[in-house]
Amino acid sequence: MDLFPVPPTPGRRLTGRVTATLKAEAGGGDYGFVTRPIDALEVAYEGIPGDRHFGLTRRSGGREPWYPRGTEMRNDRQVSLLAVDELAAIAGGLDIPEVKAEWIGGNMVIDGLPQLSMMPPRTRLMFAGGAVIAIEGQNGPCRFSGKSIAVHYPGREDIEHGFVKVAKRLRGVVGWIERPGVIRPGEEVVARVPEHWTYAPPAGVDG
Amino acid sequence: MDLFPVPPTPGRRLTGRVTATLKAEAGGGDYGFVTRPIDALEVAYEGIPGDRHFGLTRRSGGREPWYPRGTEMRNDRQVSLLAVDELAAIAGGLDIPEVKAEWIGGNMVIDGLPQLSMMPPRTRLMFAGGAVIAIEGQNGPCRFSGKSIAVHYPGREDIEHGFVKVAKRLRGVVGWIERPGVIRPGEEVVARVPEHWTYAPPAGVDG
Repeated sequence: MDLFPVPPTPGRRLTGRVTATLKAEAGGGDYGFVTRPIDALEVAYEGIPGDRHFGLTRRSGGREPWYPRGTEMRNDRQVSLLAVDELAAIAGGLDIPEVKAEWIGGNMVIDGLPQLSMMPPRTRLMFAGGAVIAIEGQNGPCRFSGKSIAVHYPGREDIEHGFVKVAKRLRGVVGWIERPGVIRPGEEVVARVPEHWTYAPPAGVDG
Repeated sequence: MDLFPVPPTPGRRLTGRVTATLKAEAGGGDYGFVTRPIDALEVAYEGIPGDRHFGLTRRSGGREPWYPRGTEMRNDRQVSLLAVDELAAIAGGLDIPEVKAEWIGGNMVIDGLPQLSMMPPRTRLMFAGGAVIAIEGQNGPCRFSGKSIAVHYPGREDIEHGFVKVAKRLRGVVGWIERPGVIRPGEEVVARVPEHWTYAPPAGVDG
Protein backbone atom coordinates (compact mmCIF):
# COMPACT_ATOMS: atom_id res chain seq x y z
CA MET A 1 0.00 0.00 0.00
CA ASP A 2 1.61 3.19 -1.17
CA LEU A 3 0.61 6.03 1.16
CA PHE A 4 2.66 8.63 -0.68
CA PRO A 5 2.42 8.76 -4.47
CA VAL A 6 3.72 12.31 -3.92
CA PRO A 7 6.27 12.74 -1.10
CA PRO A 8 4.83 14.47 1.99
CA THR A 9 5.70 18.13 2.47
CA PRO A 10 7.65 18.67 5.70
CA GLY A 11 6.37 21.10 8.30
CA ARG A 12 7.95 24.54 8.36
CA ARG A 13 8.03 27.73 10.35
CA LEU A 14 7.70 31.21 8.86
CA THR A 15 7.71 34.64 10.46
CA GLY A 16 5.57 37.62 9.55
CA ARG A 17 4.14 40.75 11.10
CA VAL A 18 0.66 42.10 11.77
CA THR A 19 0.09 45.39 9.96
CA ALA A 20 -3.55 46.03 10.88
CA THR A 21 -6.33 44.73 13.11
CA LEU A 22 -9.99 45.31 12.31
CA LYS A 23 -13.41 44.48 13.64
CA ALA A 24 -16.95 44.24 12.26
CA GLU A 25 -19.60 45.74 14.50
CA ALA A 26 -22.47 43.42 15.36
CA GLY A 27 -24.95 45.73 13.68
CA GLY A 28 -23.49 45.94 10.24
CA GLY A 29 -25.08 48.25 7.72
CA ASP A 30 -25.46 48.02 3.97
CA TYR A 31 -22.49 45.68 3.87
CA GLY A 32 -22.74 43.97 7.24
CA PHE A 33 -19.32 42.42 6.98
CA VAL A 34 -17.36 45.64 6.54
CA THR A 35 -14.79 46.12 9.30
CA ARG A 36 -12.99 49.15 10.72
CA PRO A 37 -9.39 49.40 11.96
CA ILE A 38 -8.89 49.17 15.72
CA ASP A 39 -5.82 49.55 17.93
CA ALA A 40 -5.97 46.06 19.41
CA LEU A 41 -7.92 42.95 18.57
CA GLU A 42 -9.14 40.91 21.51
CA VAL A 43 -9.68 37.26 20.64
CA ALA A 44 -11.53 34.75 22.83
CA TYR A 45 -12.39 31.08 22.27
CA GLU A 46 -15.60 32.23 20.61
CA GLY A 47 -13.84 34.69 18.32
CA ILE A 48 -13.79 38.49 18.52
CA PRO A 49 -16.07 39.90 21.25
CA GLY A 50 -18.53 42.35 19.72
CA ASP A 51 -17.83 41.21 16.17
CA ARG A 52 -20.68 39.84 14.09
CA HIS A 53 -18.86 36.54 13.60
CA PHE A 54 -18.46 35.98 17.35
CA GLY A 55 -19.76 32.68 18.65
CA LEU A 56 -18.99 29.08 19.43
CA THR A 57 -21.51 28.16 16.76
CA ARG A 58 -22.84 29.84 13.62
CA ARG A 59 -25.57 29.25 11.05
CA SER A 60 -24.60 27.49 7.83
CA GLY A 61 -24.82 29.32 4.50
CA GLY A 62 -23.90 28.96 0.87
CA ARG A 63 -20.42 27.74 1.73
CA GLU A 64 -21.91 24.56 3.24
CA PRO A 65 -24.32 23.37 0.55
CA TRP A 66 -24.53 19.96 2.26
CA TYR A 67 -26.47 21.53 5.16
CA PRO A 68 -29.94 23.08 4.94
CA ARG A 69 -29.30 26.83 5.06
CA GLY A 70 -29.37 28.10 8.63
CA THR A 71 -28.24 24.87 10.28
CA GLU A 72 -26.43 25.46 13.55
CA MET A 73 -22.82 24.28 13.34
CA ARG A 74 -19.46 24.82 15.01
CA ASN A 75 -18.09 28.25 14.12
CA ASP A 76 -14.88 27.61 12.22
CA ARG A 77 -14.97 31.05 10.55
CA GLN A 78 -14.36 33.31 13.54
CA VAL A 79 -11.70 35.50 11.95
CA SER A 80 -10.72 36.56 8.43
CA LEU A 81 -7.01 37.06 7.80
CA LEU A 82 -5.58 38.88 4.80
CA ALA A 83 -2.08 39.43 3.42
CA VAL A 84 -0.52 42.69 2.23
CA ASP A 85 0.90 41.13 -0.95
CA GLU A 86 -2.28 39.28 -1.82
CA LEU A 87 -4.45 42.39 -1.40
CA ALA A 88 -2.05 44.17 -3.75
CA ALA A 89 -2.26 41.30 -6.24
CA ILE A 90 -6.06 41.47 -6.18
CA ALA A 91 -5.95 45.23 -6.78
CA GLY A 92 -3.53 44.69 -9.64
CA GLY A 93 -5.76 42.05 -11.16
CA LEU A 94 -8.75 44.40 -10.99
CA ASP A 95 -6.69 47.34 -12.23
CA ILE A 96 -7.52 49.54 -9.25
CA PRO A 97 -5.13 51.36 -6.87
CA GLU A 98 -5.99 49.33 -3.78
CA VAL A 99 -8.30 46.94 -2.00
CA LYS A 100 -8.71 47.88 1.63
CA ALA A 101 -9.03 45.05 4.15
CA GLU A 102 -12.04 46.75 5.76
CA TRP A 103 -14.01 46.66 2.51
CA ILE A 104 -13.96 42.89 2.44
CA GLY A 105 -14.36 42.18 6.13
CA GLY A 106 -10.78 41.41 7.10
CA ASN A 107 -9.99 41.17 10.81
CA MET A 108 -6.27 41.28 10.33
CA VAL A 109 -3.67 42.10 7.70
CA ILE A 110 -0.36 40.27 7.79
CA ASP A 111 2.89 41.01 6.01
CA GLY A 112 5.75 38.61 5.32
CA LEU A 113 3.93 35.26 5.21
CA PRO A 114 4.12 34.33 1.53
CA GLN A 115 1.04 32.78 -0.06
CA LEU A 116 -0.97 33.08 3.13
CA SER A 117 -4.06 31.89 1.29
CA MET A 118 -2.31 28.65 0.43
CA MET A 119 -1.37 27.73 4.00
CA PRO A 120 -2.97 24.40 4.82
CA PRO A 121 -5.67 23.79 7.42
CA ARG A 122 -4.19 23.07 10.87
CA THR A 123 -1.49 25.70 10.40
CA ARG A 124 -1.08 27.61 13.67
CA LEU A 125 -0.47 31.35 13.66
CA MET A 126 1.27 32.14 16.94
CA PHE A 127 1.30 35.81 17.85
CA ALA A 128 4.07 37.30 19.98
CA GLY A 129 1.54 38.43 22.59
CA GLY A 130 0.36 34.86 23.17
CA ALA A 131 -2.78 34.57 21.05
CA VAL A 132 -2.94 31.65 18.64
CA ILE A 133 -5.20 31.27 15.61
CA ALA A 134 -5.72 27.94 13.83
CA ILE A 135 -6.24 28.20 10.10
CA GLU A 136 -9.43 26.48 9.02
CA GLY A 137 -8.87 27.07 5.34
CA GLN A 138 -8.78 29.28 2.31
CA ASN A 139 -11.50 31.90 2.12
CA GLY A 140 -13.49 31.90 -1.09
CA PRO A 141 -14.11 35.28 -2.73
CA CYS A 142 -17.81 36.16 -3.10
CA ARG A 143 -19.79 38.76 -5.06
CA PHE A 144 -20.76 40.65 -1.91
CA SER A 145 -17.12 41.48 -1.27
CA GLY A 146 -16.73 42.44 -4.92
CA LYS A 147 -19.70 44.77 -4.64
CA SER A 148 -18.31 46.29 -1.47
CA ILE A 149 -15.08 47.11 -3.32
CA ALA A 150 -16.94 48.42 -6.38
CA VAL A 151 -18.67 51.06 -4.23
CA HIS A 152 -15.30 52.80 -3.98
CA TYR A 153 -14.73 52.80 -7.74
CA PRO A 154 -17.74 54.40 -9.41
CA GLY A 155 -18.31 53.21 -12.97
CA ARG A 156 -16.54 49.94 -12.32
CA GLU A 157 -19.51 47.63 -11.92
CA ASP A 158 -17.35 44.85 -13.39
CA ILE A 159 -15.52 44.60 -10.07
CA GLU A 160 -18.44 42.83 -8.40
CA HIS A 161 -17.98 39.73 -10.53
CA GLY A 162 -14.35 40.35 -11.40
CA PHE A 163 -13.34 40.05 -7.77
CA VAL A 164 -14.66 36.50 -7.57
CA LYS A 165 -12.27 35.38 -10.32
CA VAL A 166 -9.29 37.59 -9.58
CA ALA A 167 -9.25 36.97 -5.82
CA LYS A 168 -9.34 33.20 -6.04
CA ARG A 169 -6.55 31.78 -3.82
CA LEU A 170 -5.63 35.34 -2.80
CA ARG A 171 -8.49 36.19 -0.43
CA GLY A 172 -6.73 35.01 2.70
CA VAL A 173 -7.82 32.43 5.21
CA VAL A 174 -10.43 32.01 7.90
CA GLY A 175 -9.76 30.44 11.26
CA TRP A 176 -10.70 29.97 14.87
CA ILE A 177 -9.06 30.84 18.14
CA GLU A 178 -6.84 28.21 19.72
CA ARG A 179 -5.58 30.49 22.49
CA PRO A 180 -7.15 33.79 23.55
CA GLY A 181 -5.21 37.01 23.75
CA VAL A 182 -4.82 40.51 22.40
CA ILE A 183 -3.25 41.12 18.98
CA ARG A 184 -1.84 44.49 17.99
CA PRO A 185 -0.52 46.01 14.75
CA GLY A 186 3.28 45.63 14.63
CA GLU A 187 3.22 42.32 16.46
CA GLU A 188 5.28 39.42 15.16
CA VAL A 189 3.51 36.25 14.10
CA VAL A 190 5.05 32.81 13.59
CA ALA A 191 3.24 30.42 11.27
CA ARG A 192 3.72 26.76 12.09
CA VAL A 193 2.79 24.91 8.92
CA PRO A 194 2.30 21.21 9.69
CA GLU A 195 3.58 18.34 7.60
CA HIS A 196 0.98 17.71 4.92
CA TRP A 197 0.41 15.37 2.01
CA THR A 198 -1.88 14.24 -0.77
CA TYR A 199 -4.68 11.87 0.19
CA ALA A 200 -4.59 9.29 -2.57
CA PRO A 201 -6.20 5.97 -1.67
CA PRO A 202 -6.65 3.28 -4.32
CA ALA A 203 -9.05 4.17 -7.13
CA GLY A 204 -12.61 2.94 -7.24
CA VAL A 205 -13.59 3.58 -3.65
CA ASP A 206 -15.55 6.82 -3.97
CA GLY A 207 -19.27 6.73 -3.41
CA MET B 1 4.10 33.10 -9.05
CA ASP B 2 3.48 29.39 -9.29
CA LEU B 3 1.00 28.37 -6.59
CA PHE B 4 0.97 24.74 -7.64
CA PRO B 5 4.32 23.05 -8.28
CA VAL B 6 2.23 19.91 -7.68
CA PRO B 7 -1.34 19.99 -9.05
CA PRO B 8 -3.99 20.33 -6.31
CA THR B 9 -5.89 17.20 -5.33
CA PRO B 10 -9.62 17.57 -6.01
CA GLY B 11 -12.12 17.05 -3.22
CA ARG B 12 -13.85 13.71 -3.06
CA ARG B 13 -16.60 11.89 -1.25
CA LEU B 14 -16.26 8.41 0.22
CA THR B 15 -18.73 6.23 2.09
CA GLY B 16 -18.02 3.96 5.05
CA ARG B 17 -19.78 2.47 8.04
CA VAL B 18 -19.41 2.71 11.81
CA THR B 19 -18.63 -0.68 13.33
CA ALA B 20 -18.21 0.32 16.98
CA THR B 21 -18.65 3.25 19.33
CA LEU B 22 -16.71 3.53 22.57
CA LYS B 23 -16.27 5.88 25.49
CA ALA B 24 -13.61 6.56 28.12
CA GLU B 25 -14.99 7.11 31.60
CA ALA B 26 -13.89 10.30 33.26
CA GLY B 27 -12.20 8.34 36.06
CA GLY B 28 -9.85 6.23 34.04
CA GLY B 29 -7.77 3.65 35.85
CA ASP B 30 -4.32 2.27 35.22
CA TYR B 31 -4.63 3.35 31.61
CA GLY B 32 -6.93 6.33 31.84
CA PHE B 33 -7.54 6.49 28.12
CA VAL B 34 -8.93 2.97 27.77
CA THR B 35 -12.48 2.99 26.38
CA ARG B 36 -15.34 0.51 26.48
CA PRO B 37 -17.92 -0.27 23.77
CA ILE B 38 -21.29 1.45 24.11
CA ASP B 39 -24.53 1.16 22.14
CA ALA B 40 -24.66 4.80 21.08
CA LEU B 41 -22.20 7.67 21.19
CA GLU B 42 -23.64 11.05 22.05
CA VAL B 43 -21.52 13.91 20.71
CA ALA B 44 -21.92 17.56 21.72
CA TYR B 45 -19.97 20.66 20.70
CA GLU B 46 -17.62 19.96 23.61
CA GLY B 47 -17.09 16.34 22.63
CA ILE B 48 -18.46 13.21 24.32
CA PRO B 49 -20.37 13.94 27.55
CA GLY B 50 -18.84 11.96 30.42
CA ASP B 51 -15.69 11.12 28.45
CA ARG B 52 -12.34 12.23 29.83
CA HIS B 53 -11.61 14.24 26.68
CA PHE B 54 -14.83 16.25 26.97
CA GLY B 55 -14.41 20.00 26.94
CA LEU B 56 -14.29 23.14 24.88
CA THR B 57 -10.69 23.52 26.03
CA ARG B 58 -7.97 21.13 27.17
CA ARG B 59 -4.49 21.33 28.66
CA SER B 60 -1.55 21.10 26.29
CA GLY B 61 0.83 18.15 26.49
CA GLY B 62 3.74 16.55 24.70
CA ARG B 63 2.00 16.90 21.35
CA GLU B 64 2.26 20.68 21.59
CA PRO B 65 5.91 21.26 22.52
CA TRP B 66 5.57 24.94 21.59
CA TYR B 67 3.37 25.52 24.66
CA PRO B 68 4.43 25.18 28.29
CA ARG B 69 2.90 21.88 29.42
CA GLY B 70 -0.55 22.41 30.88
CA THR B 71 -1.42 25.51 28.87
CA GLU B 72 -5.15 25.91 28.31
CA MET B 73 -6.03 25.68 24.62
CA ARG B 74 -8.95 24.92 22.36
CA ASN B 75 -9.78 21.21 22.49
CA ASP B 76 -9.21 19.92 18.97
CA ARG B 77 -8.80 16.32 20.18
CA GLN B 78 -12.31 15.55 21.35
CA VAL B 79 -12.66 12.18 19.65
CA SER B 80 -10.33 9.42 18.45
CA LEU B 81 -11.40 7.56 15.30
CA LEU B 82 -9.93 4.26 14.16
CA ALA B 83 -10.29 2.11 11.05
CA VAL B 84 -10.89 -1.64 10.86
CA ASP B 85 -8.21 -2.19 8.21
CA GLU B 86 -5.62 -0.02 9.94
CA LEU B 87 -6.11 -1.79 13.29
CA ALA B 88 -5.57 -5.07 11.44
CA ALA B 89 -2.45 -3.69 9.78
CA ILE B 90 -1.05 -2.65 13.15
CA ALA B 91 -1.76 -6.09 14.58
CA GLY B 92 -0.07 -7.65 11.57
CA GLY B 93 2.95 -5.42 11.98
CA LEU B 94 3.24 -6.40 15.64
CA ASP B 95 2.59 -10.07 14.86
CA ILE B 96 -0.35 -10.35 17.25
CA PRO B 97 -3.91 -11.56 16.57
CA GLU B 98 -5.60 -8.23 17.12
CA VAL B 99 -5.49 -4.69 18.48
CA LYS B 100 -8.77 -3.74 20.09
CA ALA B 101 -9.93 -0.16 19.73
CA GLU B 102 -10.68 0.06 23.45
CA TRP B 103 -7.09 -0.71 24.36
CA ILE B 104 -5.86 2.44 22.64
CA GLY B 105 -8.68 4.78 23.53
CA GLY B 106 -10.67 4.76 20.32
CA ASN B 107 -14.12 6.36 20.40
CA MET B 108 -15.20 4.90 17.11
CA VAL B 109 -14.19 2.25 14.61
CA ILE B 110 -15.02 2.81 10.96
CA ASP B 111 -14.96 0.37 8.05
CA GLY B 112 -14.75 1.22 4.36
CA LEU B 113 -12.90 4.55 4.43
CA PRO B 114 -9.50 3.64 2.99
CA GLN B 115 -6.43 5.20 4.60
CA LEU B 116 -8.49 6.98 7.22
CA SER B 117 -5.30 8.13 8.95
CA MET B 118 -4.26 9.95 5.80
CA MET B 119 -7.43 12.00 5.41
CA PRO B 120 -6.45 15.67 5.50
CA PRO B 121 -7.46 18.17 8.18
CA ARG B 122 -10.80 19.84 7.39
CA THR B 123 -12.28 16.56 6.10
CA ARG B 124 -15.86 16.28 7.37
CA LEU B 125 -17.26 12.95 8.48
CA MET B 126 -21.01 13.20 8.09
CA PHE B 127 -22.97 10.50 9.89
CA ALA B 128 -26.37 9.33 8.64
CA GLY B 129 -28.00 10.30 11.94
CA GLY B 130 -26.91 13.94 11.54
CA ALA B 131 -23.75 14.22 13.63
CA VAL B 132 -20.68 15.67 11.91
CA ILE B 133 -17.06 15.35 13.00
CA ALA B 134 -14.28 17.51 11.56
CA ILE B 135 -10.92 15.81 11.25
CA GLU B 136 -8.20 17.75 13.01
CA GLY B 137 -5.41 15.47 11.91
CA GLN B 138 -3.52 12.22 12.12
CA ASN B 139 -3.12 10.78 15.59
CA GLY B 140 0.46 9.97 16.55
CA PRO B 141 1.06 6.60 18.22
CA CYS B 142 2.55 6.82 21.72
CA ARG B 143 4.21 4.39 24.11
CA PHE B 144 1.27 4.48 26.52
CA SER B 145 -0.97 2.94 23.90
CA GLY B 146 1.72 0.40 23.11
CA LYS B 147 1.93 -0.54 26.79
CA SER B 148 -1.83 -0.83 27.01
CA ILE B 149 -1.76 -3.35 24.14
CA ALA B 150 1.21 -5.22 25.61
CA VAL B 151 -0.80 -5.95 28.76
CA HIS B 152 -2.88 -8.36 26.68
CA TYR B 153 0.15 -10.20 25.30
CA PRO B 154 2.28 -11.38 28.24
CA GLY B 155 5.95 -11.76 27.36
CA ARG B 156 5.71 -9.25 24.53
CA GLU B 157 7.26 -6.22 26.20
CA ASP B 158 8.55 -5.19 22.75
CA ILE B 159 5.02 -4.09 21.83
CA GLU B 160 5.29 -0.96 23.97
CA HIS B 161 7.92 0.57 21.71
CA GLY B 162 7.06 -1.45 18.63
CA PHE B 163 3.62 0.10 18.46
CA VAL B 164 5.07 3.59 18.09
CA LYS B 165 6.86 2.56 14.89
CA VAL B 166 4.36 0.11 13.45
CA ALA B 167 1.28 2.28 14.01
CA LYS B 168 2.70 5.40 12.37
CA ARG B 169 0.13 6.72 9.86
CA LEU B 170 -2.23 3.90 10.86
CA ARG B 171 -3.42 5.11 14.28
CA GLY B 172 -6.46 6.94 12.97
CA VAL B 173 -7.40 10.57 13.36
CA VAL B 174 -8.58 12.94 16.05
CA GLY B 175 -11.24 15.52 15.56
CA TRP B 176 -13.86 17.81 17.01
CA ILE B 177 -17.61 18.01 16.76
CA GLU B 178 -19.02 20.25 14.03
CA ARG B 179 -22.62 19.16 14.59
CA PRO B 180 -23.95 17.35 17.66
CA GLY B 181 -25.89 14.11 17.43
CA VAL B 182 -25.96 10.44 18.33
CA ILE B 183 -23.81 7.94 16.45
CA ARG B 184 -24.56 4.21 16.49
CA PRO B 185 -22.75 1.09 15.24
CA GLY B 186 -24.01 0.18 11.76
CA GLU B 187 -24.55 3.80 10.79
CA GLU B 188 -23.32 5.03 7.41
CA VAL B 189 -20.71 7.78 7.30
CA VAL B 190 -19.82 9.98 4.33
CA ALA B 191 -16.35 11.52 4.29
CA ARG B 192 -16.12 14.82 2.46
CA VAL B 193 -12.44 15.25 1.69
CA PRO B 194 -11.76 18.87 0.67
CA GLU B 195 -9.57 19.94 -2.20
CA HIS B 196 -6.03 20.11 -0.85
CA TRP B 197 -2.55 20.94 -2.07
CA THR B 198 1.11 21.39 -1.25
CA TYR B 199 2.09 24.68 0.36
CA ALA B 200 5.26 25.61 -1.51
CA PRO B 201 6.14 29.29 -1.37
CA PRO B 202 9.45 30.50 -2.78
CA ALA B 203 12.55 29.26 -0.98
CA GLY B 204 14.40 31.35 1.54
CA VAL B 205 11.49 32.70 3.51
CA ASP B 206 11.53 30.43 6.56
CA GLY B 207 12.54 31.91 9.87
